[in-house]
Amino acid sequence: MISVDQAREKIANQIELLAVESVGLSSALGRVLAADIVSDCDSPPHDKSLMDGYAIVASGYRRGERLRVAEQVVAGQVPSQSIDRSSATRIMTGAPIPAGATCVVMVELSQVETIDGEEFVTLEADRVEEGQNILPRGCVMTAGETVIKRGSRISPAVVGLLAEVGYGQVEVFRQPTVAILSTGNELVDHWQQPGPGCIRNSNGPMIAASVRRAGGEPIELGISADDEASLRAAVKRGLACDILIMSGGVSAGVMDLTPQVLADCGVEEIFHKVNLKPGKPLWVGRIGERESATNEATLVFGLPGNPVSGFVCFELFVRFAIHAMAGQGSEYWQPTTAKLAKSFQQKTRRDTYFPARFVDGERTIVEPLGWKGSADLRTIAQADGLVFFPGEPREYELDTDVLVYPL
Amino acid sequence: MISVDQAREKIANQIELLAVESVGLSSALGRVLAADIVSDCDSPPHDKSLMDGYAIVASGYRRGERLRVAEQVVAGQVPSQSIDRSSATRIMTGAPIPAGATCVVMVELSQVETIDGEEFVTLEADRVEEGQNILPRGCVMTAGETVIKRGSRISPAVVGLLAEVGYGQVEVFRQPTVAILSTGNELVDHWQQPGPGCIRNSNGPMIAASVRRAGGEPIELGISADDEASLRAAVKRGLACDILIMSGGVSAGVMDLTPQVLADCGVEEIFHKVNLKPGKPLWVGRIGERESATNEATLVFGLPGNPVSGFVCFELFVRFAIHAMAGQGSEYWQPTTAKLAKSFQQKTRRDTYFPARFVDGERTIVEPLGWKGSADLRTIAQADGLVFFPGEPREYELDTDVLVYPL
Repeated sequence: MISVDQAREKIANQIELLAVESVGLSSALGRVLAADIVSDCDSPPHDKSLMDGYAIVASGYRRGERLRVAEQVVAGQVPSQSIDRSSATRIMTGAPIPAGATCVVMVELSQVETIDGEEFVTLEADRVEEGQNILPRGCVMTAGETVIKRGSRISPAVVGLLAEVGYGQVEVFRQPTVAILSTGNELVDHWQQPGPGCIRNSNGPMIAASVRRAGGEPIELGISADDEASLRAAVKRGLACDILIMSGGVSAGVMDLTPQVLADCGVEEIFHKVNLKPGKPLWVGRIGERESATNEATLVFGLPGNPVSGFVCFELFVRFAIHAMAGQGSEYWQPTTAKLAKSFQQKTRRDTYFPARFVDGERTIVEPLGWKGSADLRTIAQADGLVFFPGEPREYELDTDVLVYPL
Repeated sequence: MISVDQAREKIANQIELLAVESVGLSSALGRVLAADIVSDCDSPPHDKSLMDGYAIVASGYRRGERLRVAEQVVAGQVPSQSIDRSSATRIMTGAPIPAGATCVVMVELSQVETIDGEEFVTLEADRVEEGQNILPRGCVMTAGETVIKRGSRISPAVVGLLAEVGYGQVEVFRQPTVAILSTGNELVDHWQQPGPGCIRNSNGPMIAASVRRAGGEPIELGISADDEASLRAAVKRGLACDILIMSGGVSAGVMDLTPQVLADCGVEEIFHKVNLKPGKPLWVGRIGERESATNEATLVFGLPGNPVSGFVCFELFVRFAIHAMAGQGSEYWQPTTAKLAKSFQQKTRRDTYFPARFVDGERTIVEPLGWKGSADLRTIAQADGLVFFPGEPREYELDTDVLVYPL
């Protein structure tokens, strides 16, 4: 059986980058940049005051000297007068430094008086330095410089930076369409009352929300019964999307028709089963030319039907694929380190990603949750991380350092 | 000057919980539950098989014995026959256990033969235990039990749990409306070419994106010039929202009109200035009866105009308020611990939240970013955390453990 890393590499080999589209800045949050961002301006655009105060010539300054106030410049204005050793400009934070000035003395150290209708200021700074309280033009960035790389996810601060350098619209990767199909004769929709032997379809809504959080556009195909004709019709609809997720039907049971139906529809298996717990039965395939006119490939994920396994497989593989389609595979999901809040017995030779919860406010202590079989959605709903235990039987003592993948 | 914690406590004292609304499950991701969620069903709803295999009576089992196959039950069906020591039911994962059976033997350990038209199975398990491979009815949750608490944020797994227990609609706190007003004569809209002395308004779009990420509904009021009449008109529009954020105009300069205009509009100051770096000039106020018909209070935040200070104040205080309005204040923003990638000189007596970046894949080493004055949006756009340095001058050596608030 292949490892989690090998599985991800096989998926990465099948990835085609998504097409590019243009969105307005107010819709750009969370999207991924499809082009390097180049500044069209110096920042700051002028030598700029970092304080409210007085712009003066630093060289030759003496504490207590009286200088003529040449003018006042607030942010948004441009100085009209240059200054010399005998004069000063009253200047506000963000305003351009007048010609001749080489430092700014803060307003708290100034005393103003009017003599014969003219304003004078006395400065009480002990000493001043060249450049003091001045941010030089272009020191943050210069026009023509690349300020963020293609493949960066757009955070609020990136939105601010895009605004600063004049991007009203921005090129981003299209969000992948992700069809979600739940299979199983026992399933009814979540707004229904299940009859005897039946349960509500919880995986469909859960996976749709996971897709949305991962940056994809979920398309819910609902529930298919476990018969070939129904499955085949539903699969064909799903193959018009960038990704098709099927939940259930990938184990070895008599009702597990998914791999055969997918093969009939022309989907080629990339791999089946991963050395992983929970989530071993994962099935991944690909079809090169999809049903729709766009003629791109579709990746197909057959996730195990039990919610914990499906959830873990989504985070490890489907979310990886969604990120990789926007050129983001390499920075995918960084773990943190924490100490075990209780001992843990690793019994299996499968690499294990165990639902867990941080128990202190500082995220340094983590407790593997006592989950009641892989149907236990209540436990994953409480989890805020997956603890990684390598696939080698071993007793982990209290306080052992472990890797935790945050959720 | 008050501390960050004191400031947050003062804000918490002014918080009114938001009203409650009902949303469909597919729109519930990221919202906050306004009521405890009670299960309407046992989970699982029946004693359930965890394997494909054969349900038998555990007591008295002998390896190699041949049992009559009574029937086959797949998930979604209900057993019609009870079994005894001489019989077995072929059962699929998720299906209900037939009456009489007390364990399931996995299909891989079975051999089927047909004798006189009747099916028999020989089981090769060394030993079996009562309850083996059976998940008992109600062991995850029982009908009437509270399964998630009011105040929980709705993650994908919570969506799955809500679906399982039958919530087509769910009661959540309304998202707060957050008006954003940028002030400053030097500002032009981000799609414009700034003239001499001017810069583009980057704070407005950045704060709007921060509001959206924090779970609020941003309402962009654009730019107001630094004159009383314009400011007053814009403030009155903003006071119809749950929160009004003003960016700029809260320092002590001649153009910093914000506190006076807010007072004129009936907004009462809660505090001005926090012992914090960056972000000291923060101004927070409240008006009890707002302009709109709804007659609720509006919280007003005057954020410092420079982007780094505004960004840090948003994360420390505005996001806190948005969370607290949905009853989420106490679990707000847990830091993680990491080692410094380089030494750091803490010079100020103000508590410092310093933009930083994790430098390893495992988020255990963090580097304070060399930010070029608080106008440096390029640096915050690269930050993925804020390192906390208490307000006491001290040299922090390489490898010192510090708290990092992740972004």
